[in-house]
Amino acid sequence: MNDSAHPALGIGICGLGTVGGGTLALLRKNKDEIGRRVGTELTLRHVATRTPKPDITAGIPTVSSDPFLAAEDPTVEVLIETMGGYDPASGVIERALQNGKHVVTANKALIAEHGNQLFKLAASQGRILAYESSVAGGIPIIKALREGLAANRIDWLAGIINGTGNFILTEMAAKQREFGDVLAEAQALGYAEADPSFDVEGIDAAHKLTIMASIAFGMPLNFAATYTEGISHITPDDINYAAELGYCIKHLGIARQTAAGIEMRVHPTLLANNRLLAKVNGVGNAVLVHGDAVGATLYSGPGAGADATASAVVADVIDIARQCVAGAERPLMPALGYREQQDLPLLAIEDIAAEYYLRIPALDRLGVMAKISSILEGHDISIEAVIQKEASGEIVPIVILTHRAAERQLNRALSQIEALDDVRGCINRIRVEPFHGEAA
Amino acid sequence: MNDSAHPALGIGICGLGTVGGGTLALLRKNKDEIGRRVGTELTLRHVATRTPKPDITAGIPTVSSDPFLAAEDPTVEVLIETMGGYDPASGVIERALQNGKHVVTANKALIAEHGNQLFKLAASQGRILAYESSVAGGIPIIKALREGLAANRIDWLAGIINGTGNFILTEMAAKQREFGDVLAEAQALGYAEADPSFDVEGIDAAHKLTIMASIAFGMPLNFAATYTEGISHITPDDINYAAELGYCIKHLGIARQTAAGIEMRVHPTLLANNRLLAKVNGVGNAVLVHGDAVGATLYSGPGAGADATASAVVADVIDIARQCVAGAERPLMPALGYREQQDLPLLAIEDIAAEYYLRIPALDRLGVMAKISSILEGHDISIEAVIQKEASGEIVPIVILTHRAAERQLNRALSQIEALDDVRGCINRIRVEPFHGEAA
Repeated sequence: MNDSAHPALGIGICGLGTVGGGTLALLRKNKDEIGRRVGTELTLRHVATRTPKPDITAGIPTVSSDPFLAAEDPTVEVLIETMGGYDPASGVIERALQNGKHVVTANKALIAEHGNQLFKLAASQGRILAYESSVAGGIPIIKALREGLAANRIDWLAGIINGTGNFILTEMAAKQREFGDVLAEAQALGYAEADPSFDVEGIDAAHKLTIMASIAFGMPLNFAATYTEGISHITPDDINYAAELGYCIKHLGIARQTAAGIEMRVHPTLLANNRLLAKVNGVGNAVLVHGDAVGATLYSGPGAGADATASAVVADVIDIARQCVAGAERPLMPALGYREQQDLPLLAIEDIAAEYYLRIPALDRLGVMAKISSILEGHDISIEAVIQKEASGEIVPIVILTHRAAERQLNRALSQIEALDDVRGCINRIRVEPFHGEAA
Repeated sequence: MNDSAHPALGIGICGLGTVGGGTLALLRKNKDEIGRRVGTELTLRHVATRTPKPDITAGIPTVSSDPFLAAEDPTVEVLIETMGGYDPASGVIERALQNGKHVVTANKALIAEHGNQLFKLAASQGRILAYESSVAGGIPIIKALREGLAANRIDWLAGIINGTGNFILTEMAAKQREFGDVLAEAQALGYAEADPSFDVEGIDAAHKLTIMASIAFGMPLNFAATYTEGISHITPDDINYAAELGYCIKHLGIARQTAAGIEMRVHPTLLANNRLLAKVNGVGNAVLVHGDAVGATLYSGPGAGADATASAVVADVIDIARQCVAGAERPLMPALGYREQQDLPLLAIEDIAAEYYLRIPALDRLGVMAKISSILEGHDISIEAVIQKEASGEIVPIVILTHRAAERQLNRALSQIEALDDVRGCINRIRVEPFHGEAA
């Protein structure tokens, strides 16, 4: 191997917020360690920021307020995009790629929604567009899916990929608190944004799931096909009933390859308490991946935070630097890992089958349970367990765990049950993920 | 990017045992999937096996009984070594590298004990010697350490890296069974070899820990410096006392970078029950890694088995194939991930400090506890918790949990305690790993 010194690699950063600031700090802090690993120096050449921070950017040759200047800077070979949002991030990345630069981004929304075009541009330019930090923070899950498990046909993956949502559910379970109450605390702690819908409605998780599913199954990104359901309808009662049945409730992103097509769905999920994934609490993230050869492997760690996210951003820069130092003529692989993608059929949520937890608000009358059972049976849905407590008011919740059933059938059954005189209000339905005999 | 077809890559396999057979089967089963990922075909060209299996090797151009023939075969570009052992594996790998082939091996003992020379040879030939499957089976932990976490200074790592040992401890804890009893069952189930010492004495784990530590800290492999202690002295009583104190007992491999130097040690360890690592049961493996930026990340999954190990072997082949297809002039990185290694001071077990669980077989006499406390205090060892049950015989075990203490001081104290008239027999000492505020 030729270990002769490679010229330093010029780095630009657009955006000095939490992630960008963390990235700059990490590149400096571990400069020597990284240099020993890569065999060359990563040198900060240009920082573009709307809010100048002279104490932080001291010594960097160019500090500008226009990210397009960084994308044009001939001294920059790898551009790090940590501005977030679509605009101008998308245009800056395009400009940088067009100028022959490699790009590293932490922008999960941009990748999930516009990744196909950006990856195509990167491929046509022979440049790398890397995005490890866009999913599960510091956990190297993109690398595991694209490389570590590359010998496998991936059957499914399931992840806790939104720390805010997991913090809320953990707190609700530990302290019997209501959703809204814990959400307010999460906002006060800075875990949740003032507009928390990206987190608690599952949009953020759906972005990440979309990205992971495309790598796992070798298909184009399709955010619009990802089913998204939030956690605001979960109550402490649901958590308690689930616990009685041996389950916890987690907000999971699930992608699965079936004979009928691809499932991509984010929703609250009952998960058996003895699963490792069930023990991932607080703001932690974890992804469980099932490959046909390896079986189930789990990747867990901090899903957010300046330092953890910077760890993934700089890992991408190191990957690029190693390819440069190795004298690779072209990127080691396309952004999503497959040289030949497939267009796979994407299933709607009505097309899946699952087990279900149902909480049915019923009047405390004789015969209600018989009517409900009869409707479920009429739709080929069999019951695995029932909890019916003594009534403390007029309405008594009937909690049912079903065996595996078709979601379309279940929807019909639930409409009929909700139409019963004895049932008042909406049924709370939560999917159950048994990972039958499949997972650690 | 130039996506023009790359000529097929010729693969050779030496050894058709569990791992070699699994590798051959996986290369065939997922041929299309792998081809879509890599952008070229991986073609089996040569299999060398002492025990011909014509049904399995049908269609492979060359089947020989001499692995050196595979290492000489000009149609083979990547040689997979799955024979195990030192001889002839070491010579076959050397010959293949000298002939300009890349090599993939699952041979942890060979890498841990002779890796420095083999890696040097690979580097001088500009070829890749890959060994993902040598540690933790199908879990891509080498990739995580070498690449995914490359932006970090690794502070420490701790792993359950021997499935047999973890199966034995799990069974002992779940069913109050004795070590020897469960070991016999593990042998009957095929988890443990007829000579189980590699597993239960920690040698296998020490091989894996040695490899992980060198990648984590950027230093040469040094198996001889890894402290190794087995689990045969653990009793159901120890497991029960630990449980009373809120801990389980796991056989951990721990590597840590401290100001004084590097710790590398394999020994039974008390681990707080609320840690994710404590929930890894049965033959599962898991490695917890703490980086200065990312914090703690956990990697868990099957640590053995034909398919899981083959997943890692073939992942290495895919990595090599991608580098070939990308037209890299030289390997992406040296085998241990650092272009500049450091010779770091390696600490002996007497040089560490830890918390300790002590089970002291004492006579049921007044004043014993006072004498023991006084000796510990005299060596600056303070007590965190004590369990002393009512005597059911002449000897009553006193169980002590200490605060952090220097191992050297503890050894002196234990010698004095064992010399007491009131103490009969050896003290069972188990180290406690608190991961203070550091880990998920």
